[in-house]
Amino acid sequence: MSLNGTYDPDNIFAKILRGEIPCAKVYEDDQVLSFMDAFPQTSGHTLVIPKTPSRNLLDTDPDMLTHVIHTTQTIASAVKTALDPDGIVITQFNGAPAGQTVFHLHFHILPRYTGGQMRDHASGQMADMDVLKQLAAKINAAL
Amino acid sequence: MSLNGTYDPDNIFAKILRGEIPCAKVYEDDQVLSFMDAFPQTSGHTLVIPKTPSRNLLDTDPDMLTHVIHTTQTIASAVKTALDPDGIVITQFNGAPAGQTVFHLHFHILPRYTGGQMRDHASGQMADMDVLKQLAAKINAAL
Repeated sequence: MSLNGTYDPDNIFAKILRGEIPCAKVYEDDQVLSFMDAFPQTSGHTLVIPKTPSRNLLDTDPDMLTHVIHTTQTIASAVKTALDPDGIVITQFNGAPAGQTVFHLHFHILPRYTGGQMRDHASGQMADMDVLKQLAAKINAAL
Repeated sequence: MSLNGTYDPDNIFAKILRGEIPCAKVYEDDQVLSFMDAFPQTSGHTLVIPKTPSRNLLDTDPDMLTHVIHTTQTIASAVKTALDPDGIVITQFNGAPAGQTVFHLHFHILPRYTGGQMRDHASGQMADMDVLKQLAAKINAAL
């Protein structure tokens, strides 16, 4: 998938937003949803997505982008409080050649620990939902 | 440098903002500055920074963050028009263990090309300023 194209309403995040696929929810309001990445690259890998359809940064309404980045900031702060990482990486991929695998805008929040490695996303193992839900509850409690 | 700490007014980006160090400027307004990364990981690697002091995402005023992310969106769109990449990566690092090397908030805009590799930032070579200025002019013309 290139940078261009149309939004596919059957992408995984659209299904999560419709409740057709479960997620370990960290936070939700009327505009955005935050949940644990099911294929975490580090422990505590969290996502923030808008509830409206957009494929990437380039086709997102600027007002919605404001909500998404403010939520990303708030959740990153809660991740810091809850998990005490040494650093936090924020990434946002646009187009498959950039590493995007789900074509619904999302920001990654990746806690980093000194000496720890990031796991590869594509070849990663699906995490245990109970473990993700415990992490989500811990981050939510720090909001 | 951890996630905590105080802002160092002698960091490289503060010096660029004060005009003490040159940069290949892409865009500037009263709140933000965008310029080419002097150690590009890919051709067209562009940065967006606020003009007010903040170390990372966690200590940035939300209103300033809005300006920074909207400018990042606008510049990313211009990078797409000017350089026609296959994908665009957005990154923002918080703390040295996350890869942050300059402790003034910045968003990276990294054009990606199918089959192309990203160069390592820390071990990268400083780019030729004339080449960077040509890229900056090309991106600016697409704004």
